[in-house]
Amino acid sequence: MYDILILGAGAGGYAAAIYASRYNLKAAVIGKEPGGVASEAVEIENYPGFKKISGLELMEKFREQVQSLGSEVFTFSDIVSIQKEGENFIAKTDDGKEFTGKALIVALGSKRRKLDIPREKEFAGKGVSYCATCDATFFKDKTVAVIGGNDSAAKAALLLSEIAKKVFIIYRKSKIRAEPILVDRIDAKENIEYVYNAIPVEIKGENVVKSVVIEQENEKKEIPLDGIFVEIGSTPEDTITTMLNLEKNEKGYVKVNSDMSTNIPGVFAAGDMTTGSNMFRQMVTAIAEGAIAAESVYRYLSEKS
Amino acid sequence: MYDILILGAGAGGYAAAIYASRYNLKAAVIGKEPGGVASEAVEIENYPGFKKISGLELMEKFREQVQSLGSEVFTFSDIVSIQKEGENFIAKTDDGKEFTGKALIVALGSKRRKLDIPREKEFAGKGVSYCATCDATFFKDKTVAVIGGNDSAAKAALLLSEIAKKVFIIYRKSKIRAEPILVDRIDAKENIEYVYNAIPVEIKGENVVKSVVIEQENEKKEIPLDGIFVEIGSTPEDTITTMLNLEKNEKGYVKVNSDMSTNIPGVFAAGDMTTGSNMFRQMVTAIAEGAIAAESVYRYLSEKS
Repeated sequence: MYDILILGAGAGGYAAAIYASRYNLKAAVIGKEPGGVASEAVEIENYPGFKKISGLELMEKFREQVQSLGSEVFTFSDIVSIQKEGENFIAKTDDGKEFTGKALIVALGSKRRKLDIPREKEFAGKGVSYCATCDATFFKDKTVAVIGGNDSAAKAALLLSEIAKKVFIIYRKSKIRAEPILVDRIDAKENIEYVYNAIPVEIKGENVVKSVVIEQENEKKEIPLDGIFVEIGSTPEDTITTMLNLEKNEKGYVKVNSDMSTNIPGVFAAGDMTTGSNMFRQMVTAIAEGAIAAESVYRYLSEKS
Repeated sequence: MYDILILGAGAGGYAAAIYASRYNLKAAVIGKEPGGVASEAVEIENYPGFKKISGLELMEKFREQVQSLGSEVFTFSDIVSIQKEGENFIAKTDDGKEFTGKALIVALGSKRRKLDIPREKEFAGKGVSYCATCDATFFKDKTVAVIGGNDSAAKAALLLSEIAKKVFIIYRKSKIRAEPILVDRIDAKENIEYVYNAIPVEIKGENVVKSVVIEQENEKKEIPLDGIFVEIGSTPEDTITTMLNLEKNEKGYVKVNSDMSTNIPGVFAAGDMTTGSNMFRQMVTAIAEGAIAAESVYRYLSEKS
């Protein structure tokens, strides 16, 4: 029996566990992918305390810290069911483990949508990025493309235009569908160029990205460049949050109050999957939400006892 | 001319500067005390990434990172005036510097009230603490006292009662004035004892705290203990926020929206002085607020141009 089950072993979940130990709460962190989405980052420069560190290395430090403070971590365990039994929560994993906890912190993150084209995976972190805020500065005076045509693609292009020499916006439709104010700002930039009716079909390179091959009006074209920013949306984890009947916004993000509580008593949420932190989805905000959630669980359990 | 003037060189201000550089914004961090309140922490165990580090060392890492990313840091400079001239903000410091910026992030923190008794300062971090969430775990099976009688004193005592062997609540009045539910919970704890009508007058010890001397009904008494948690309130910075006409809550904390904007256009706030993060005042929440504020300044300046 644990005080808290923390679902998700990313930055938000680990931070929740670190804070849980401050309150002497017995916590288990259960997650499929150790380190979550942060562990995919090849180079992190914007986490305060480390000038430059890989996501994998940083998340490993988090895990060690969680364990040294007394919480247990179970990774490579995929949660297959979660249910409330009386006042408690019971989680089962695909490797046959069963956990019981008095409260839940759900921190299962959200997944950036991928292009699913050849060599995309190979070049992730070597020219292919899913986070302009994180990686734009690595492309100073370079040529990059943003793939996508929604608000986040427009924002990524605008940010990149301040840093890169040239920015292409490659979009499958004939017109960008971002907010007009963003479109106006793009129009005012001399170094952003639209490539419409175009679908990326292959990435080329050697060690790092060298070009993207697009299909445009039934013709294949190759655009030489240094970086590809994929901005075609993201999907918050859905299965567990649905099992728990958590209230979500129209895009599937879990609605949280300022104390990270959800609509279900005893269930708190943190990190990229929530509506918190002004929707600014960064490691630092996931961590703050995890810490707040842990404090809220402490209050919740104190009030119950 | 800077894009952002960041007032305050604590965790929130430094994080804002780190994120400002992600947006290619020229930022100046201006603060009197390098590292802010975090640099007073002798040992930090709950900042993800470092199992154990002194506040001074961690804040020094933050400063180096801010500077390596291109922002300028001006410490030991006390801001004596701040005013809006047209669209810009002008800050003047006591050492005669003048800074102009297009936007402001105010991150001046809040000060824990001190007892102002002999040897309090000497023993800070050596038995005297101003943050139970941060330091409670260092007092496992020890005897501690909480000084104060409001909600935060009650919460500190409850948290400490889970970890320490014995907790005294030393309060100058004849009855604690915390929420009844907190008082009920204290009453249910066998290891919490009230010491009423008592005023701490001196701290004694050798290298570390050994006892506190109190004055109770005109008599001096000495209580042997290992730790003293001072919970007599905190005061957010007031002078600058008043000069800026920032809207505050009844306790003086700056009211912020979810994007860290304030009631004054172009002025954002972050860290311990705001009403954000469910009022959970920790380094991780100050950092998240600083990051969000920097992104909001980027949006604000983009919309203006």
